[in-house]
Amino acid sequence: MIIQSHFKQYQVHFKDELDFVLGLGKNEPAYWIVDRNIYDLYGQQLGLTHLDKKYLIDAIEENKTMDTVLEICEAMTELSAKRNIHLISIGGGITQDITGLVANLLYRGIRWTFIPTTLLAACDSCIGGKTSLNYKEYKNLLGTFYPPDDIFICPSFFHTLTKRDFQSGLGEVVKFNIMYGKEGIDRIERDITDLLNRKEDIISQYVRQSLEFKKQYIEKDEFDRGIRIHLNFAHTFGHAIEKVSGYEIPHGTAVAMGTVVANDISFQRGYLSEETVKRIRQIMQKIINISFDLSAISSRELIGAIRKDKKQTGDFLRGVLFTENLELEVFDDLLENEIIQAFVHLNHFLREGAEA
Amino acid sequence: MIIQSHFKQYQVHFKDELDFVLGLGKNEPAYWIVDRNIYDLYGQQLGLTHLDKKYLIDAIEENKTMDTVLEICEAMTELSAKRNIHLISIGGGITQDITGLVANLLYRGIRWTFIPTTLLAACDSCIGGKTSLNYKEYKNLLGTFYPPDDIFICPSFFHTLTKRDFQSGLGEVVKFNIMYGKEGIDRIERDITDLLNRKEDIISQYVRQSLEFKKQYIEKDEFDRGIRIHLNFAHTFGHAIEKVSGYEIPHGTAVAMGTVVANDISFQRGYLSEETVKRIRQIMQKIINISFDLSAISSRELIGAIRKDKKQTGDFLRGVLFTENLELEVFDDLLENEIIQAFVHLNHFLREGAEA
Repeated sequence: MIIQSHFKQYQVHFKDELDFVLGLGKNEPAYWIVDRNIYDLYGQQLGLTHLDKKYLIDAIEENKTMDTVLEICEAMTELSAKRNIHLISIGGGITQDITGLVANLLYRGIRWTFIPTTLLAACDSCIGGKTSLNYKEYKNLLGTFYPPDDIFICPSFFHTLTKRDFQSGLGEVVKFNIMYGKEGIDRIERDITDLLNRKEDIISQYVRQSLEFKKQYIEKDEFDRGIRIHLNFAHTFGHAIEKVSGYEIPHGTAVAMGTVVANDISFQRGYLSEETVKRIRQIMQKIINISFDLSAISSRELIGAIRKDKKQTGDFLRGVLFTENLELEVFDDLLENEIIQAFVHLNHFLREGAEA
Repeated sequence: MIIQSHFKQYQVHFKDELDFVLGLGKNEPAYWIVDRNIYDLYGQQLGLTHLDKKYLIDAIEENKTMDTVLEICEAMTELSAKRNIHLISIGGGITQDITGLVANLLYRGIRWTFIPTTLLAACDSCIGGKTSLNYKEYKNLLGTFYPPDDIFICPSFFHTLTKRDFQSGLGEVVKFNIMYGKEGIDRIERDITDLLNRKEDIISQYVRQSLEFKKQYIEKDEFDRGIRIHLNFAHTFGHAIEKVSGYEIPHGTAVAMGTVVANDISFQRGYLSEETVKRIRQIMQKIINISFDLSAISSRELIGAIRKDKKQTGDFLRGVLFTENLELEVFDDLLENEIIQAFVHLNHFLREGAEA
């Protein structure tokens, strides 16, 4: 899959076997950044243990900082290769965020290959070029646009994901697929069991579809100033849920919950039929795998978290909702009350799921 | 003047009077970053003293760090405006480097207007989109490409520059103009006295010509992977001179000296006539205004500084030289000995200048 970017054209390669890694970075100056978990699980098999020019990263939010970026840049200045170094990174979204900014900032940009090892990174963040860092209490405050030159996706990595992380990834996969409309919902209903069972060919197909969907938006609006905001569907609520849970709820799962909230508002406004809302809720129920009790959170705290989002640029509240026929539309007139109401409904829904 | 960039199209506006500043940032959320010297000299006149959303910057190399960038980003998160904030910065190259990275990193990019107040920033760095930070002992190790949306150039600012800073700016102006070839040399010989006397209309005309020259290269090769390296003419040697002088020699003056070194090599190789080399030396003699004794520097140190440059990506030494008819060409076969020889000649030349 080729992605057109303002910076360059870049490519997503799909691989059935892990051994493609053994062929990377040969006969050229290369530097590797590898998630420590991946290194422990796959280091021998992928020949990573023999590399001397590498940095192992503990992929936790606390390390998604400028300090980590600077530490890696400093290590890389020791190499004799300079702007011609090839940076290869293997890991999930946190690894991607950090290495993307290293690749962007060092020598004003170096060649970068990224291998996503989580479903979440593979189906979504690996394309689009966003890099992000946390700063003090501000999550993802700092970042740039800097896409990798090459992306390699191999579903074999997903077998070692925890249930929590795998199902978080499914949250984004499902979100992208229902954005396709009725056809997408039919498809997901048919395949959700295979997806939950991690059937590689099915996963690969859904990752491809998710990226195809995203590609249309990022090619039209790479810098996120217009139509790309549609990809923010469910995220206004999802980000707030992540935040008030103290990031106990992982991103994709929060997006699945945010989808339920968004659709509830659409239903209350008469934009979506009860049947469609119900079908999507039933899919989400299968992949939301968290017993976090949101009812302990005050609605003021939730609304406060929404208002702090960097995409809330005015006094009104903005969100993307489905309207009739599952068309996406940006609304600038969301009311605090309807959001709070939808969160109350989400709580009922989560409790039903827990009891089921 | 319109510049085409991969990110956007941006514009350079030329102004005769300073009062255009009074009209900026009205009826929109704006944040100002102002060089403290400029603020002290022009703050009242330009209405800057009344602004409450501003940051005053001590524009010294020691502050060109990620710490400064993060400090400004943090101050800006306090504002209610988020991605819609308009950043306006006033100052020279250091102010530009810092604010460019703030504008790039905060919320993945915000609108940015830059007003260069030094001749060096006006005639060169304000276009092309490079941002730079120092890290530990590494100068300009970190950076990105992020051009301003609008640039306003007003030569009135240049009257308060020190002789040292003004003549440093002339170093780049002269460099760009001799790149035009014989016609450029004729022109500079005719106007050098007016330039030294800071005649506004003449300066304005030369700044325009310098930017027109640079524009051709950055539009073809914004990310500095090909032909833009021609703009690096004299810089291989200039950067080394800056560095070994402990940055006592300012950038443009070092580039003027680097031009003398480059042309000496071209002459020794038979690429340039003695007459051309002599004419350019005579112009440079008028604007090199530093009594630094380079002969105290060992040639090993000079060569070492050249090798550390981020554009030296191989074992060979690379530099851009004039060939016949003042055409620029990249050479990958520079010899340590010919460089050392040219530096010895530069020392003679500087001593003659000091004695004249």
